[in-house]
Amino acid sequence: MKNKNVKGLVIVYTGNGKGKTTAALGMALRAAGHGQKTLIIQFIKSFRGYGELKFVKKFDCGIEIKTMGKGYVKIKGDRFPFEEHVKAAKRAFKFAKDQILSKKYHIIVLDEINIALDKKLLTVKEVAELIKKKPSDLHLILTGRGAPKKIIQLADLVTEVKEIKHPFKKGVPAQKGIEN
Amino acid sequence: MKNKNVKGLVIVYTGNGKGKTTAALGMALRAAGHGQKTLIIQFIKSFRGYGELKFVKKFDCGIEIKTMGKGYVKIKGDRFPFEEHVKAAKRAFKFAKDQILSKKYHIIVLDEINIALDKKLLTVKEVAELIKKKPSDLHLILTGRGAPKKIIQLADLVTEVKEIKHPFKKGVPAQKGIEN
Repeated sequence: MKNKNVKGLVIVYTGNGKGKTTAALGMALRAAGHGQKTLIIQFIKSFRGYGELKFVKKFDCGIEIKTMGKGYVKIKGDRFPFEEHVKAAKRAFKFAKDQILSKKYHIIVLDEINIALDKKLLTVKEVAELIKKKPSDLHLILTGRGAPKKIIQLADLVTEVKEIKHPFKKGVPAQKGIEN
Repeated sequence: MKNKNVKGLVIVYTGNGKGKTTAALGMALRAAGHGQKTLIIQFIKSFRGYGELKFVKKFDCGIEIKTMGKGYVKIKGDRFPFEEHVKAAKRAFKFAKDQILSKKYHIIVLDEINIALDKKLLTVKEVAELIKKKPSDLHLILTGRGAPKKIIQLADLVTEVKEIKHPFKKGVPAQKGIEN
């Protein structure tokens, strides 16, 4: 085990506001400062231009990111049949399971997995089972809006990130470094 | 100006949940991936063992952190008279003002400044004036619970980070890399 005497937490970031993925990234940075290793597995997301991907390529700092989605499901611009999204999610979940059980990491982030659950790409049952089976010293972070009740029940720390005011509604375009 | 054609946003992270500072750290990491520079000025906080401080010492990645507080005000363990907290906050604010106007950074984070406002270490008026005077291409992030109404009015993006479930209430101690 990597983390002796550590109680690994199950942490959920949900809600409609900005900051769920960035909060997980910030935790990874903080943990890396202590010499801990984090793996971030991105469900749903397929865009490879995010600053965090460029960052981990530039700095060998103990944070790894795997982008394994096919983009947002059933929205404008979705180029894939539903089955392709299911296949990608199942592949990412299989990878997540192997990495969680490998005990190679102090923190594993399942980014946007709540959306994969909401869109029925994965079942709540299989994710709940994996949470119960995780090594006791591993911190597991699940992000994405619409976290199912069952996942919230299993979590130790649940934070709702709530949008109070958003600039896109005032016509300001997305800003590099802030939005992506 | 560093950021041509960029509309610098005023971003507020407030609320009682975990993830305000880590969301700002995650944004700094994302921005660093794009080659942008971030300065984080910590009000209130005095603890120098945070993972993020160790991280920026290890990796020269375009993120700078200045810890300029005297600890949390009027709580158990507060060793300083109120005037010392005021002095530290004023010093940090003066530094923030100089750095904001220097145009050396793409992002400046005023960490826990909302608490400094709430505790009357600074006036809402002086902070509001600085927000109005900031360079138009600088992203300015203000964190801390209890953001005053006036600050929320001036912000472009406001996110409330809300605690739904917290492990300390179940008797789990703080975890290195997660809590600090």
